[in-house]
Amino acid sequence: MTLASNPLAIVVLAAGKGTRMKSDLHKVLHPVAGRPMLEHLLASAAQLAPERQVVVAGHGREQLEKALGSRATIAVQEPQLGTGHAVQQAEGALAGFDGDVLILYGDVPFVREETMRAMIARLHAEDAPAVVVLGFQPEDPLQYGRVLAHDDGRIAMMVEYKDATEEQRACRLCNSGLMAVKSADLFDLLAKVGNENAQGEYYLVDIVNIATLEGRACAVIVTDDPDEVGGINSRGELAEAEGRWQKARRVQAMADGVTLIAPETVFFAWDTKLGRDVTVEPNVVFGPGVSVADNVVIHAFSHLEGATLESSVAIGPYARLRPGAVLKAGSKIGNFVEMKNAVLGEGAKANHLTYLGDAVVGAGANIGAGTITCNYDGYFKHKTVIGERAFIGSNSALVAPVKIGADAIVAAGSAVTRDVADGELRLVRGEQLVKPGWADRFHDAMKKKKAELKG
Amino acid sequence: MTLASNPLAIVVLAAGKGTRMKSDLHKVLHPVAGRPMLEHLLASAAQLAPERQVVVAGHGREQLEKALGSRATIAVQEPQLGTGHAVQQAEGALAGFDGDVLILYGDVPFVREETMRAMIARLHAEDAPAVVVLGFQPEDPLQYGRVLAHDDGRIAMMVEYKDATEEQRACRLCNSGLMAVKSADLFDLLAKVGNENAQGEYYLVDIVNIATLEGRACAVIVTDDPDEVGGINSRGELAEAEGRWQKARRVQAMADGVTLIAPETVFFAWDTKLGRDVTVEPNVVFGPGVSVADNVVIHAFSHLEGATLESSVAIGPYARLRPGAVLKAGSKIGNFVEMKNAVLGEGAKANHLTYLGDAVVGAGANIGAGTITCNYDGYFKHKTVIGERAFIGSNSALVAPVKIGADAIVAAGSAVTRDVADGELRLVRGEQLVKPGWADRFHDAMKKKKAELKG
Amino acid sequence: MTLASNPLAIVVLAAGKGTRMKSDLHKVLHPVAGRPMLEHLLASAAQLAPERQVVVAGHGREQLEKALGSRATIAVQEPQLGTGHAVQQAEGALAGFDGDVLILYGDVPFVREETMRAMIARLHAEDAPAVVVLGFQPEDPLQYGRVLAHDDGRIAMMVEYKDATEEQRACRLCNSGLMAVKSADLFDLLAKVGNENAQGEYYLVDIVNIATLEGRACAVIVTDDPDEVGGINSRGELAEAEGRWQKARRVQAMADGVTLIAPETVFFAWDTKLGRDVTVEPNVVFGPGVSVADNVVIHAFSHLEGATLESSVAIGPYARLRPGAVLKAGSKIGNFVEMKNAVLGEGAKANHLTYLGDAVVGAGANIGAGTITCNYDGYFKHKTVIGERAFIGSNSALVAPVKIGADAIVAAGSAVTRDVADGELRLVRGEQLVKPGWADRFHDAMKKKKAELKG
Repeated sequence: MTLASNPLAIVVLAAGKGTRMKSDLHKVLHPVAGRPMLEHLLASAAQLAPERQVVVAGHGREQLEKALGSRATIAVQEPQLGTGHAVQQAEGALAGFDGDVLILYGDVPFVREETMRAMIARLHAEDAPAVVVLGFQPEDPLQYGRVLAHDDGRIAMMVEYKDATEEQRACRLCNSGLMAVKSADLFDLLAKVGNENAQGEYYLVDIVNIATLEGRACAVIVTDDPDEVGGINSRGELAEAEGRWQKARRVQAMADGVTLIAPETVFFAWDTKLGRDVTVEPNVVFGPGVSVADNVVIHAFSHLEGATLESSVAIGPYARLRPGAVLKAGSKIGNFVEMKNAVLGEGAKANHLTYLGDAVVGAGANIGAGTITCNYDGYFKHKTVIGERAFIGSNSALVAPVKIGADAIVAAGSAVTRDVADGELRLVRGEQLVKPGWADRFHDAMKKKKAELKG
Repeated sequence: MTLASNPLAIVVLAAGKGTRMKSDLHKVLHPVAGRPMLEHLLASAAQLAPERQVVVAGHGREQLEKALGSRATIAVQEPQLGTGHAVQQAEGALAGFDGDVLILYGDVPFVREETMRAMIARLHAEDAPAVVVLGFQPEDPLQYGRVLAHDDGRIAMMVEYKDATEEQRACRLCNSGLMAVKSADLFDLLAKVGNENAQGEYYLVDIVNIATLEGRACAVIVTDDPDEVGGINSRGELAEAEGRWQKARRVQAMADGVTLIAPETVFFAWDTKLGRDVTVEPNVVFGPGVSVADNVVIHAFSHLEGATLESSVAIGPYARLRPGAVLKAGSKIGNFVEMKNAVLGEGAKANHLTYLGDAVVGAGANIGAGTITCNYDGYFKHKTVIGERAFIGSNSALVAPVKIGADAIVAAGSAVTRDVADGELRLVRGEQLVKPGWADRFHDAMKKKKAELKG
Repeated sequence: MTLASNPLAIVVLAAGKGTRMKSDLHKVLHPVAGRPMLEHLLASAAQLAPERQVVVAGHGREQLEKALGSRATIAVQEPQLGTGHAVQQAEGALAGFDGDVLILYGDVPFVREETMRAMIARLHAEDAPAVVVLGFQPEDPLQYGRVLAHDDGRIAMMVEYKDATEEQRACRLCNSGLMAVKSADLFDLLAKVGNENAQGEYYLVDIVNIATLEGRACAVIVTDDPDEVGGINSRGELAEAEGRWQKARRVQAMADGVTLIAPETVFFAWDTKLGRDVTVEPNVVFGPGVSVADNVVIHAFSHLEGATLESSVAIGPYARLRPGAVLKAGSKIGNFVEMKNAVLGEGAKANHLTYLGDAVVGAGANIGAGTITCNYDGYFKHKTVIGERAFIGSNSALVAPVKIGADAIVAAGSAVTRDVADGELRLVRGEQLVKPGWADRFHDAMKKKKAELKG
């Protein structure tokens, strides 16, 4: 679906206190699937290529400024006098703009692109409504404002629940708050909104009733998925949104040819990429930035962020891949192994209790159990380069910057501080001191001491 | 709510065999949220400050004696001749006591304090009932005994399901078994209970019918949460109780300002304390004794017991904190790191594959990957003290007792057995032996051998 | 229940493309509970001691040949012209066989032995039906073919959903596809099946209608568990089957006396064996081949495959037991410890960050934190033998083949390459080099450098 060529602006309301979150973090910056909810919303809206993006901020607006940078104009609402007042604050940022305005909410982040498009398409339908409202039909509509509409979608009246008659309350079509309006109409209508109500606030919804009274038609379109307009106002609702997102993503992964042995225990990030015939065992967590090619096996209890897994890689259980981990085809990371900013060459292996940081490991190399790349001196990070087919003996410390040659061998337990040449053996080892009978004498002495302490 | 000044005794029935648990552990000692179910019950009852606590024990009473110590009097029921008989065994332990008696069940551990208070308050209401019964209305009431009561809560009759008429069975108000009775009435009524029934047992419930027949009113109060009187008779029911407890605790945590990305994967203990703006990633297990301050991040797959996390601490993924772990503000524990009886100073870090046991780490210190505090000599535990801003190189073994000074550096791969002074470098390292070409010759020889074995 | 002495053959249809799985692995080889679904089916059928087993294969039949070896005859269906045509391909493999034929489906793997027996028993009932069909009554029967049957189970007609009248569709008894037929009847009936239908295929179900038209009775028996005939055609359905299997296994474990704190987070394999009074904490994964004796505690985040745990063993959290791990009574494996092909003696302990591969550890030995058995030289695996009550100091590397004597002590940080005698102390350690003030000078220099880079 391509959009009509009318210019578009989006106005995102994000000035609320978010009190129920009990958080110092701005409500709309709380993440779902590893991405702030505001970013989910902006990413969907970006598909419609808006000319302008305005975020109306109040409390904690410094956090929004920092998060958004130059990507959106921030309009300040101070004090907060209602949703209508909030949208009015965007007037300056929309100066000179003539086109459609889509009014969104930072805490309603999962409105689909197609829903946004449908709202705008409705705005340009033959009957040219002044305002298009997005309605929804929740299972339990009790507390929401109602949209009283004719069968053709024309709105008769918007009514708040508390002001509604029993008959009006019986109507199950609710107001999501999302609207599409032409910019020329928007601020004209908003100027007429008053605050003669119990809260003394300017309500956005009033523009619909004002337009209707003026004889201009307004229209409602109804989403088939009430969840997409669900607001996130508490950590409980945040968890529910995360749960819904994860569930949908798991279903998609399985449909694409990924085996999830226990789907409910696998957590994806918003940008996780998965190939075909990938198997993910129970209890795996994907942070952002992970790309997994075909035929990869991710064993249980693995944790991945910013990692690239080429085909036929196997990791885990208990693999921890951090940003910059690149596993070339057929390579293998085993249990209790951490990789960060490191490349593991084709068919190379690091199977046990290892830390590979700031390293490049050649194809076919074998990194023994307990190997540590000592990449940090307390001030700077340094690089370890390991050649093809090199063999790093267990419990070795590779003190970077250091280079181990191709086919080289580092003996078990070595702390290697100087480069090892190709085909060379490096052995760093102290004297083997033998004290026959010492252990027996030690045992006797200690047992005696222990007995004395007890006695 | 404060309690009327009447003295209170609780009698906890815990003499059953618990056959369906299939366990050598006494049924009421099986834990929920890391705490034996009997302890949950006693803790709730303790809020009412009972003067006496009697636990009626039969099978496995040695386990109860050991668990309770002097906190409760144990009355032995041997043989077990029914619930009425069980309560009768408490008569000796209540000698000289004149007040209210609350009859509880060790395998019904989640009765709320307010429910107990309501029972006792009802006992002292104007109509002065002889017995107060706690009733409940389960979704499926089929197998429970019924409480036939008037609208004002006066009991007409208690009837066992098997003796009930169709009409009586249609009543959905069930008997939980919990009762409040004045001590003066209790043993008087119990003495009149007979065992002329199929099982030849003395049923506690009969005291209600006896009192009623004698013209004394008895009353029922009804819990609004049938789950609180659910008995735990099998491991399946134990798991259900655990699940209900965890679910409620997660909801509470989120309401208090904790982000649980996947609430269903986080397991709390009965005494877990959590600050505000704490984030808990999926798959985290809290054992008893954990206290977490504000702004802490607990990454996935972490396991905590007896640990104290000050503000702005970050741990995991795969952090394992054991009793006595204290993480000062802003400190950090990374993956595959275990801490036990150890203090990590402000801003100090131990990021990878480390064991910190019986240690004190100074502020700003950096513990390299693979560091082990060797705290045990096979007989005694010894202490490691690391100074402020010290830098412990990767793969080091610190052989306790040992002290590393402030700003000191331990070189990677060192086994440190003697104290290191402030600002000193300690380097324990063998000779770097270089054998050029050795690895190439080794590879050739091994490949030949491998070929021979196959050939 | 013993089977009538009639010889039995099973024919398993497994020729479909399995397109919806989006997999290069044959659909029926996808595992549930760690075992290919075809193996689940064959194992249940094996309880009936079939004389012949025929698997009808088409796409990917090489994979089936490899998986089955000589255990079953593979009949090739090429091209695939319907289920009737598929069964016909088994005619050669059943040459000379005279007995009962049970027609099963590789992607319907959880049909119970008792259901199979009931089908065959029905085939030999007095009314001697020509075909016995297994019917089921799903909650939502919409898309399945219907079995129109008399009250006594005689089939009036089999009808595909698309050909069914409204009245026929109202019948909720559906055709699972499973059938029992005498071999003499089977191929006679199949020969009469035509392909005059929209798809041009030969449908197995037609043998029922043909027999009925010929005046021979056919019968339906109905499973009381619709799930057992659920087909697995996608990864989503695979996950659902896994979920159902796991749920049932968890219930069984708890009934047998195992505590599962969070049953939904524990994953068993098809052959997991568990003793009594075993406690399994949250998030534990069992691969195939695990046997756990009584009174064992498996802490959270543990992963076990091919391991044997004797009584009173404790492992984890984060224990990883691989095939060949044998833990003798009272032994203990702690966090971040991996065991493979290794025996841990009675009461022995390896509590932290350790790799035990190809090793035998004597009773009462203590393996210090960070110990690595260096079992691999890049070409061959070698063995480590540790004596009773030996003490391996932390961060040691035991370079196999190597033997540590009874009561011997290896000092922390040692790389041991030669055998250690009984009661001997082995100390492999470099010189302790002390550089007073070096660290302070290093800190000054680095701070300066860092400042320069920023400035």
